[in-house]
Amino acid sequence: MKRLLITGAAGGVGREMRKRLAGMADILRLSDIADLGDAAPNEELVTCDLGDEAAVLDLVAGCDGILHLGGVSVERSFSQILNGNIQGVYNLYEAARAHGMPRIIFASSNHVVGFQPQDAHLGADCAMKPDGLYGVSKCFGEAMASMYHSKFGQETAIVRIGSCFEKPLNHRMLATWFSVDDFVGLIEAVFRAPRLGCPVIWGVSDNDHAWWDNSAGRYLGWVAKDNSAAYLAHIESTQSRPAADDPVSIWQGGAFTQDPIFKD
Amino acid sequence: MKRLLITGAAGGVGREMRKRLAGMADILRLSDIADLGDAAPNEELVTCDLGDEAAVLDLVAGCDGILHLGGVSVERSFSQILNGNIQGVYNLYEAARAHGMPRIIFASSNHVVGFQPQDAHLGADCAMKPDGLYGVSKCFGEAMASMYHSKFGQETAIVRIGSCFEKPLNHRMLATWFSVDDFVGLIEAVFRAPRLGCPVIWGVSDNDHAWWDNSAGRYLGWVAKDNSAAYLAHIESTQSRPAADDPVSIWQGGAFTQDPIFKD
Amino acid sequence: MKRLLITGAAGGVGREMRKRLAGMADILRLSDIADLGDAAPNEELVTCDLGDEAAVLDLVAGCDGILHLGGVSVERSFSQILNGNIQGVYNLYEAARAHGMPRIIFASSNHVVGFQPQDAHLGADCAMKPDGLYGVSKCFGEAMASMYHSKFGQETAIVRIGSCFEKPLNHRMLATWFSVDDFVGLIEAVFRAPRLGCPVIWGVSDNDHAWWDNSAGRYLGWVAKDNSAAYLAHIESTQSRPAADDPVSIWQGGAFTQDPIFKD
Amino acid sequence: MKRLLITGAAGGVGREMRKRLAGMADILRLSDIADLGDAAPNEELVTCDLGDEAAVLDLVAGCDGILHLGGVSVERSFSQILNGNIQGVYNLYEAARAHGMPRIIFASSNHVVGFQPQDAHLGADCAMKPDGLYGVSKCFGEAMASMYHSKFGQETAIVRIGSCFEKPLNHRMLATWFSVDDFVGLIEAVFRAPRLGCPVIWGVSDNDHAWWDNSAGRYLGWVAKDNSAAYLAHIESTQSRPAADDPVSIWQGGAFTQDPIFKD
Amino acid sequence: MKRLLITGAAGGVGREMRKRLAGMADILRLSDIADLGDAAPNEELVTCDLGDEAAVLDLVAGCDGILHLGGVSVERSFSQILNGNIQGVYNLYEAARAHGMPRIIFASSNHVVGFQPQDAHLGADCAMKPDGLYGVSKCFGEAMASMYHSKFGQETAIVRIGSCFEKPLNHRMLATWFSVDDFVGLIEAVFRAPRLGCPVIWGVSDNDHAWWDNSAGRYLGWVAKDNSAAYLAHIESTQSRPAADDPVSIWQGGAFTQDPIFKD
Amino acid sequence: MKRLLITGAAGGVGREMRKRLAGMADILRLSDIADLGDAAPNEELVTCDLGDEAAVLDLVAGCDGILHLGGVSVERSFSQILNGNIQGVYNLYEAARAHGMPRIIFASSNHVVGFQPQDAHLGADCAMKPDGLYGVSKCFGEAMASMYHSKFGQETAIVRIGSCFEKPLNHRMLATWFSVDDFVGLIEAVFRAPRLGCPVIWGVSDNDHAWWDNSAGRYLGWVAKDNSAAYLAHIESTQSRPAADDPVSIWQGGAFTQDPIFKD
Repeated sequence: MKRLLITGAAGGVGREMRKRLAGMADILRLSDIADLGDAAPNEELVTCDLGDEAAVLDLVAGCDGILHLGGVSVERSFSQILNGNIQGVYNLYEAARAHGMPRIIFASSNHVVGFQPQDAHLGADCAMKPDGLYGVSKCFGEAMASMYHSKFGQETAIVRIGSCFEKPLNHRMLATWFSVDDFVGLIEAVFRAPRLGCPVIWGVSDNDHAWWDNSAGRYLGWVAKDNSAAYLAHIESTQSRPAADDPVSIWQGGAFTQDPIFKD
Repeated sequence: MKRLLITGAAGGVGREMRKRLAGMADILRLSDIADLGDAAPNEELVTCDLGDEAAVLDLVAGCDGILHLGGVSVERSFSQILNGNIQGVYNLYEAARAHGMPRIIFASSNHVVGFQPQDAHLGADCAMKPDGLYGVSKCFGEAMASMYHSKFGQETAIVRIGSCFEKPLNHRMLATWFSVDDFVGLIEAVFRAPRLGCPVIWGVSDNDHAWWDNSAGRYLGWVAKDNSAAYLAHIESTQSRPAADDPVSIWQGGAFTQDPIFKD
Repeated sequence: MKRLLITGAAGGVGREMRKRLAGMADILRLSDIADLGDAAPNEELVTCDLGDEAAVLDLVAGCDGILHLGGVSVERSFSQILNGNIQGVYNLYEAARAHGMPRIIFASSNHVVGFQPQDAHLGADCAMKPDGLYGVSKCFGEAMASMYHSKFGQETAIVRIGSCFEKPLNHRMLATWFSVDDFVGLIEAVFRAPRLGCPVIWGVSDNDHAWWDNSAGRYLGWVAKDNSAAYLAHIESTQSRPAADDPVSIWQGGAFTQDPIFKD
Repeated sequence: MKRLLITGAAGGVGREMRKRLAGMADILRLSDIADLGDAAPNEELVTCDLGDEAAVLDLVAGCDGILHLGGVSVERSFSQILNGNIQGVYNLYEAARAHGMPRIIFASSNHVVGFQPQDAHLGADCAMKPDGLYGVSKCFGEAMASMYHSKFGQETAIVRIGSCFEKPLNHRMLATWFSVDDFVGLIEAVFRAPRLGCPVIWGVSDNDHAWWDNSAGRYLGWVAKDNSAAYLAHIESTQSRPAADDPVSIWQGGAFTQDPIFKD
Repeated sequence: MKRLLITGAAGGVGREMRKRLAGMADILRLSDIADLGDAAPNEELVTCDLGDEAAVLDLVAGCDGILHLGGVSVERSFSQILNGNIQGVYNLYEAARAHGMPRIIFASSNHVVGFQPQDAHLGADCAMKPDGLYGVSKCFGEAMASMYHSKFGQETAIVRIGSCFEKPLNHRMLATWFSVDDFVGLIEAVFRAPRLGCPVIWGVSDNDHAWWDNSAGRYLGWVAKDNSAAYLAHIESTQSRPAADDPVSIWQGGAFTQDPIFKD
Repeated sequence: MKRLLITGAAGGVGREMRKRLAGMADILRLSDIADLGDAAPNEELVTCDLGDEAAVLDLVAGCDGILHLGGVSVERSFSQILNGNIQGVYNLYEAARAHGMPRIIFASSNHVVGFQPQDAHLGADCAMKPDGLYGVSKCFGEAMASMYHSKFGQETAIVRIGSCFEKPLNHRMLATWFSVDDFVGLIEAVFRAPRLGCPVIWGVSDNDHAWWDNSAGRYLGWVAKDNSAAYLAHIESTQSRPAADDPVSIWQGGAFTQDPIFKD
């Protein structure tokens, strides 16, 4: 790849990917609304509000691939979500359409199924059960990706990210943990595939604790390698187990299900 | 019911329902951004932009039920869809939450599955395949309805309307026709049900030509009665058959699949 | 048929069937633990405790078919259920095995799925969710029927009776009503079938309100004819609608889900 | 249609269709290896061995539609089946490809699922379980139709004919009966459809006794109207019921399952 | 855990678990109707007939968890099964309800699906096909567990044990073998889960020979580690292969399918 | 085994199996229409046209097992396919029936699903979508195997071979590669199984790139061990990636989908 765009590059996952994907393209174009620090030699830094249609059009120009991590990634007021995750996603897809339709990895979220119970075992075709405005905005983004694929042939890997951290931090993450290595492996597979289409992939490692079945995406040749079981003893010994009637024990979306509708 | 709100009451379906549902509540509150004419004795007329959060909050106050037909109902520019179908739906659900959560009938659309082929036979749990920005906005609305149900207990009947006209007008409508009588019957069933939940119902009559299976919604006690077959001979004799490779013969969404992205 | 045994013939459904099935066999053998009144010319009356193994062995002798309505049909103490519905079912199947394996219609109950929600649409292969000791005993009976079929070839029609009354009596029965005519039609079909096997049939009429799908049993040639919709207006006008959070609006088993464990 | 070809026009179903479809095209071209009698004014009669590639190429020339009833329709030696149903089907599809790919109705058979048990309820996507060489040849024909559709766009309605007679003749036909009227209705629907594709349709009337589910083909707008139940009493009173362990009571293919491999 | 009750502790699996679970709770309370030998320092030994309601009520008092291995574990007369597996299960669940609903592991059995053919690959939601009175009693127990969960919130892990031995002993056990290590691992996972619910888990190791799919239970974080393949060569070299028409080659329940109904 | 017949022994896979299966039977009987070279001590070489019924009858005599690799294995004219793959398969099954029904491994092909898209994840029960006359002939062979099993009890393992080479040779083979070791392992498992039945097995290794799910065949105890991922880097570095709209990137059958109908 000549130029890979990473939006949301100042966020937690974005910072990791800035480091890990440096060798994946000649140039990394990194964007965020927050400060991105200093540019490395192969980096282009762009401060960009995803809700700004013209700015996003410029941002995408010249890119061969897009890792779209940008926008709001937790529950927020509707106006914030509207700007980053609704208008922003429209802007991104229109910009991609204008600029040769580079392949997109769309960071969707497990919160599109946040109100699925934890004892459900879900394929990529399960019913959406968003757990808040944030989850609803990701349903919107998935629908947008599907439409641009059907109508224009734009390819997107919709990745429903679980919990992408260095290691699982609590009991719920035993099921949702998505190691950075596994995410990097998935990104490589997506950009390597001769034909991507528009699959839904669960962004999750090969944990013993498992809610999600990724077999439908096996045509990409990606199989997660890490397993949260390595951290089970540590979590058990350092954290108290949540109660059976705690939402973090009931719903796949955990505490997000309890967020109110935030107002500005 | 004491007061039933019909949004989009100046539109084609809205005008029919204004007539047909007059006896269903003591008062019909009718809203639209377009002119609604003169109020009948049991009517309250409200000019309202659904994208205006405060106005929608007032609009919903005092209503026991909502038939939400408002918003954009064909492919339009994203800004128009954003106002009526994205911001507008958020406004409606927040207003309903503030005012006792009256039961809502949400007019979704067959265009959430517009890129499903016509030889697919779909249950209510099929994959969404929206055929344009309008279809995407209805996916958003369905996700919003689901979230308010899971989180707050707000009940909604999501009705994916096919083609609600006096009679089927062309070959495609042999499959999508939803008679006004059948829609009225469904509305009655929804407001009669002791418990509604948040079902997805195909808004379609009992046509011999059938793409959609409504058996999952039979708990409401609604069964469509009309059948487009009564109009088959007339359509065959007055219209030329579309070609096999015409999008209106291929995709459930018909010509919508060919709409471009409209710009303001 | 020469001799048809009806157990539980003094119960509500039993009394109806005593009248309606008189012409179906040369002799009706009627049993109950309660008084059966006077015998008509073609009737044999037997007072029999189903928990008495020897008595049941005698009861079944000489019969070509069995309509097994006997045993406890509502929530009761475990000892009562154990006698009639556990020991009693074992006794019945052992007696049938000893006497040429006459075809059995086993009156199971919707209460084997009583904790299924009312918005679930269920085939005959759905998960069992019994709603009390009575429902559990019917799960036991279905398992017994299955085992005698697999092991010995004994044929049984497992009929999960909804609400078999002259007409539906309340809102829930709009979905569960099983008209006596339809039950008679099913019994005729079961005894007419060249080969029965061991199907699970929902004992329900062709109601507009529908939770259950009987298509898997269509090989018997039975299609229900009656529809509770004829009684909808009457129920609506004479009964108050149950609340949305009333168990009779939530669970298929209705009020049974609220029964405690009864003690003798 | 200008010219409709009916192969196998001297057979039982063919003779009926010769009468019934006379008005469906300007010219009926009728072919068989057996004598076809005298030609009516709008008929063209062709004696043709389907195994003769050149003859079939001529036969199809100038036709707008094909009702392919020809070939062997019961169990026969492999050489006979090879000629009519294997070579013959290849010849037919190659001829159609050479002559503009007129729409084909391919008379497949319930004997592709003859070893399915009668208590199975099957959609069009069920597993094939042929019951003899004849059934195997029909599996071959269905595969050929599928391939020509995928590869060349040739459209075929694969009709798995049950028992196409004036009325059901025995107990098994209560489930398999396909009235001539219903077959004619299906043929009309197939040639009327703007887009056919390559569906599998069960050729069966709307019998109370039902093994097969045609909902997947409802996009054609065809719904069977006749019901074998009208003949139930007659069959019951004039025929002895087959035994439970008679193959005609066990397998969908009935007595065909007992045919040996015939040798010339 | 302070006190873990193991019923059936004198049986084959029970004796293993007595050794292996000693460290899992401060006190092991061990019960059986057979002799339990001498108590270790952290053990409480109770001779108890599970059919004795009062005795079971006492037995459960003070326990935080129950591993219910007790009752009949092979085909027996109905009276024996009735006492241990029917009355006994009722007694256990009533006792648990009276004493704070400690989490239960219920030893169900593969014999609830004993009449499933060996070439069926089954999820936890497959149809029950019990192979004898013992299997039927386990269907009863599973139904009881489900009902107490739905009605009272009692949590149970229903474990359908295959063949829990030190190593697989014959050809059939290549598929059914459940290593003691794997069972211990499952028990740990069940008691560790913040929320258990009422899952059905196949009690089977990760054998190359596999009839059962445990993916639905992966939310517990348990994955079997052992594999019968390690013993394949030994079994092949020391045992004659069963014939293809031997029930141990046909049915999942193996030889149990051939047991008669035992009489006292 | 005393005598194992390998047909098609002069082909690519056949030559490998001749080497690898030498120890599996006292005698290998090897047949082909092409030259087989010199016989090793435990080999019997037979030149045989599979289309010659009498010759095939002789060929099978005295064999305990058959690995049927013979016939045409790529797209060819219909007459060639008819001889080897249609008449030849009939001849083989009739010969097997005449000689005690030795177990057969039938080399079917992924080309029975060649027009399935590469992003479909298929179980053994998926719809057939053959991609040419060769694929159609394999559908025929599978139907024949099914019929001989249902009707006569003949056992066959239907193996849908992907790409059986020493290593994967191109991007598509990352998904279709079937290592020789894995094929040998499968053959051993098939002949070892006490009861085989008539399963469909995907002939594919345990590749990270996966289109096919073999869980339904796990009752045989066979699990593939090799993984094409070991060759990914090599393929990526030595071959150009096919374009997204290249048939080898779209269809499971790859370039076969583009073959014309070959004429002699």
